[in-house]
Amino acid sequence: MANGTAGRNVARKLIASHLVSGEMEPGTEIGIRIDQTLTQDATGTMVMLELEALDLDRVRTDVSVQYVDHNLLQADERNMADHIFLRSACRRYGLWYSRPGNGVSHPTHMQRFGVPGATMVGSDSHTCAAGALGMLAMGVGGLEAAMAIAGEPIHVTMPEIWGIRLTGELPPWVSAKDVILEMLRRHGVRGGVGRIIEYHGPGLAGLTAMDRHVIANMGAELGATTTVFPSDERVLEFLRGEDREDDFTEIVADPDASYDVTDEIDLSALEPLIARPSSPGDVVPVREVAGEEVHQVVVGSSANPGLRDFASVAAIVKGRQVRPHVSLDVNPTSRQILVDLTKMGAATDLIQAGARIHQAGCLGCIGMGQAPAVGRNSLRTFPRNFPGRSGTADDRVWLCSPETAAAAALTGKITDPRELDMEPPLLRLPERSSVNREMLEAPLPEDEARRVELDKAPSIGVLPDLDPLPDDMDVPVVIKVGDDVSTDEILMAGAQALPYRSDIAKLADFAFVRIDEGYPERAREAGPHAVVGGRNYGQGSSREHAAIAPRHLGLRLVLARGYARIHWQNLVNFGILPLEFADEAGYDRVEQGDRLRIEGVRAALEKGTEIEVRNLTRDETYRARHRLSPRQRDLVAAGGQIPALRARR
Amino acid sequence: MANGTAGRNVARKLIASHLVSGEMEPGTEIGIRIDQTLTQDATGTMVMLELEALDLDRVRTDVSVQYVDHNLLQADERNMADHIFLRSACRRYGLWYSRPGNGVSHPTHMQRFGVPGATMVGSDSHTCAAGALGMLAMGVGGLEAAMAIAGEPIHVTMPEIWGIRLTGELPPWVSAKDVILEMLRRHGVRGGVGRIIEYHGPGLAGLTAMDRHVIANMGAELGATTTVFPSDERVLEFLRGEDREDDFTEIVADPDASYDVTDEIDLSALEPLIARPSSPGDVVPVREVAGEEVHQVVVGSSANPGLRDFASVAAIVKGRQVRPHVSLDVNPTSRQILVDLTKMGAATDLIQAGARIHQAGCLGCIGMGQAPAVGRNSLRTFPRNFPGRSGTADDRVWLCSPETAAAAALTGKITDPRELDMEPPLLRLPERSSVNREMLEAPLPEDEARRVELDKAPSIGVLPDLDPLPDDMDVPVVIKVGDDVSTDEILMAGAQALPYRSDIAKLADFAFVRIDEGYPERAREAGPHAVVGGRNYGQGSSREHAAIAPRHLGLRLVLARGYARIHWQNLVNFGILPLEFADEAGYDRVEQGDRLRIEGVRAALEKGTEIEVRNLTRDETYRARHRLSPRQRDLVAAGGQIPALRARR
Repeated sequence: MANGTAGRNVARKLIASHLVSGEMEPGTEIGIRIDQTLTQDATGTMVMLELEALDLDRVRTDVSVQYVDHNLLQADERNMADHIFLRSACRRYGLWYSRPGNGVSHPTHMQRFGVPGATMVGSDSHTCAAGALGMLAMGVGGLEAAMAIAGEPIHVTMPEIWGIRLTGELPPWVSAKDVILEMLRRHGVRGGVGRIIEYHGPGLAGLTAMDRHVIANMGAELGATTTVFPSDERVLEFLRGEDREDDFTEIVADPDASYDVTDEIDLSALEPLIARPSSPGDVVPVREVAGEEVHQVVVGSSANPGLRDFASVAAIVKGRQVRPHVSLDVNPTSRQILVDLTKMGAATDLIQAGARIHQAGCLGCIGMGQAPAVGRNSLRTFPRNFPGRSGTADDRVWLCSPETAAAAALTGKITDPRELDMEPPLLRLPERSSVNREMLEAPLPEDEARRVELDKAPSIGVLPDLDPLPDDMDVPVVIKVGDDVSTDEILMAGAQALPYRSDIAKLADFAFVRIDEGYPERAREAGPHAVVGGRNYGQGSSREHAAIAPRHLGLRLVLARGYARIHWQNLVNFGILPLEFADEAGYDRVEQGDRLRIEGVRAALEKGTEIEVRNLTRDETYRARHRLSPRQRDLVAAGGQIPALRARR
Repeated sequence: MANGTAGRNVARKLIASHLVSGEMEPGTEIGIRIDQTLTQDATGTMVMLELEALDLDRVRTDVSVQYVDHNLLQADERNMADHIFLRSACRRYGLWYSRPGNGVSHPTHMQRFGVPGATMVGSDSHTCAAGALGMLAMGVGGLEAAMAIAGEPIHVTMPEIWGIRLTGELPPWVSAKDVILEMLRRHGVRGGVGRIIEYHGPGLAGLTAMDRHVIANMGAELGATTTVFPSDERVLEFLRGEDREDDFTEIVADPDASYDVTDEIDLSALEPLIARPSSPGDVVPVREVAGEEVHQVVVGSSANPGLRDFASVAAIVKGRQVRPHVSLDVNPTSRQILVDLTKMGAATDLIQAGARIHQAGCLGCIGMGQAPAVGRNSLRTFPRNFPGRSGTADDRVWLCSPETAAAAALTGKITDPRELDMEPPLLRLPERSSVNREMLEAPLPEDEARRVELDKAPSIGVLPDLDPLPDDMDVPVVIKVGDDVSTDEILMAGAQALPYRSDIAKLADFAFVRIDEGYPERAREAGPHAVVGGRNYGQGSSREHAAIAPRHLGLRLVLARGYARIHWQNLVNFGILPLEFADEAGYDRVEQGDRLRIEGVRAALEKGTEIEVRNLTRDETYRARHRLSPRQRDLVAAGGQIPALRARR
């Protein structure tokens, strides 16, 4: 292991330069100072309410930016009321405000604010995308983001550093998306848990900063803590294109750097890949599934946000026509990229070929519109295809590169783009972007900011009241779920649920309904209750609502085979005790309806990491573990961060 | 009155050339042969189910086109399922299919299919826009559109012809929208009932065909049967620009033509006008309301669909910035117009100034997204601002020209555009449009069409079962409403309700809720019941759902002071008896909860146009009238057109 100062990799350099507590020993808790934060509208209203509860006067980071990109449909009055509230909070607390229509947070942040060597947390699980610039960036729950905005360090378990050596060059028709799909093909959705992925090696030279964004972004789908790339010549090139070459710092691994775990990808050996419905980890070569009929193709999202991603689709469909039964939906990343596409003529090529050009934003990626028909294949350049995330209960969503997406739009079938009867497109991209800062409102001066009042419509809601953890827990298991259940399944987003993201009582009606429609009613009847989960419980989106809404219905205990990092933290933050089965047999034996009992919870947690859970129904006992630090034990016992915040005021 | 063949106006020429029954005597029923039909997705699924019930083999019109423009948000799986069903029905029955993203029906139809001298009906109240090309085009309910597709003539009451003589030329900063707003300022939302508006005079020379579309489109807001313009040099110019000069025929009024009613507008005397919340008829000069803070500006819709409408906004905001608290939303009319805007550079100007460019379609005009926050002013170039139509219950929506909209975006306040510190924009528009036909699927050849199966997802629904009218009616008044209640208030569209437009039972939950949330529950309890309405009952949208949904809850009798044409027809088509108070005092006396009784309905209807309605609660009798022809009496008695269609199969 590469400890000390000699032979350090990029990840360890970034951590070392921001370490405020702990030792960089994998598995132990470390504290990291945070330079930047990013919030988006779906999680941001709660963050702003938390800043209010913290009685914050002014942000204590270098840069904090609130983006509006998730919910832009404005199906009723709540949506614009959210925007008005978020803007007023930015003006009050000193955040930047990225207006609706400016663009998707991750690529926009990279273009305007990303700085090599900086740390960042964001209340969005794809915050890790900033690793493309040599940043240490992590997705966290909203409360963690609020604490970071308030100047608090972030506490995480020191991950292992997983070095991926890239060699060779991508063949024609294969692009960055296929690199991350190859990682998911090899390692699945749990492959990166407890690790930082660091790419290095000669293959990096062929990947632009925005290509690296594609790979870093979907590192979230591997369950990784984050992904980092070095800050090298390609990063300088990118910053120069954004008029920010002064923000460049070189950060590369020492020549003798080593890694805790290693792997290698020969880029020249890759072929077009695709993730099948309904997991980003179910990846196969496109040729193996070629011929399946396709009804929808959507390009865009933070997983394929670059100008080249759209320009390559435009070049492939130029002068041709999308098949009549296919809807080709184009979601521009940002208005800046839309301007560049327009100037290049690519926007016209897309429209003439039959594309529907949508407003800049996340849209269908988060299930805000663009829902496919039941059982009809939808190919998307998005990062996730968890069941129902598209807004359709029985959806068939596939994840692929822009090249594979464009091929399907032209043929109406899943098609290996190498089989198209054309030369691979030669893209000529501008060296400089059409930089446009006008839809980013800068923070107000401090004295002016103090006079701003929060503009809160009744729909904005309030932070929930949360009671302390009972010391004797005697709770029924209201639902038992399998492995890899995502926060999209625990609490769906999408056009039906997202508008209520600050009305917790209403939002709770959507808890677990993608898996079991009966959960909300059973949970309401049960009151205090438990949920039993499989491996990697709570993967995917960082939304803390997946903790808050079941908590509102009485959830106090989760007993799972393993957790995704952000959701585990969200459970702790909202006073829900997350335990892991110490022996696997326990998971198999416990059933929905069983009553579980833990006596003297506080004392048991303090005694050690093991804790006994009694199944009263089956008259048996399971050994379980917890991973709570003393600070976190206190939080859970108090009922979560909100009562703790309230106590401070 | 200009009867006979000498001195005929355009309207009478168009009617005479298609008359199949009746005499052209105002107030009497005439039958008109229909050359073209237009349907859109919100009303079209029902129309296609009706074609199926009619057992139609193939359309019997010259041209029938199904557009997909209303619901493009795809909030869940129903939306794409609708599109798939509509496409399959077009292929089966021989209609053109305009794919999602191709554009808004009225301007797109005008560009691709409009033919001077032709008649058209459309299941959309703004179908009258085609009058801009010298067509006789009327909005009708879905069933009427289905009958027309099946080759049946349309029966209407012969209207009076209202000649509006235009003189002078529009001043700078004043455009076509201000002409129709002036009509609404003078005459209000009931001013055109029972009339066809025909524009003539020297002022016409300054109005392009698309300017005339703006005026004809919003003729619907005056309650007019339709609007017609002559087919002259400007129409030829338009058709030439669309590569269709061969479709031109000159149709102008005879030099000695006269009109039943006359009025005159001096265009040079007009100033920027605006309709206040929440009626298109509440029009004032912009200067009188200048200074009110604006949070949203939306440009687009069939009421301002032309390239010049967007290009003028682009020219005004070019090089400037939209105020940070304002969302400037741009809804392109069609992909063709978006291509032209892009080629001109106007799209870039809009984006750079801060506009959000949305997909081509109706969007916020029908409440599909873009809902404003409660109480915040939204300025729109749309045709309607009925309460709640925007998707927000307590909305503040204003209607204005593109110039007035652009001015507000720049200043953040309602602003007379003449007060902007700039020269009026000089537009250079291309003489030829970027004609693009590829998203219009042509009808299949007949033998191929016969092999097509309708592709019906479970969400498509079925035509409702409707029982005959009871002969002795004894029904409570479940709701009493005031004047000018629109079909948006009787049955809201928008993002919440529109997805259920073929699930009548679910849709019924939204009936009248914009006025009184208790109606659906009271109606369900009451079963057979009555509604009491004021003047111009059922103005606005042609949606037959405003008849079907209350009918599903038991509505059998409407007693009103007067009706909007299309809704009256829809009531008849769905077996609801529409009566009018013969003495006005009756309306004032009857109250919600009163029991009304009509004995021997069938005999009473046959006896004459007067009918007695007994108020059992107050022990008094009202004299009422009906306007049913013998054919219509039979329809109402049978329970409506659907049982009649079923009987035919």
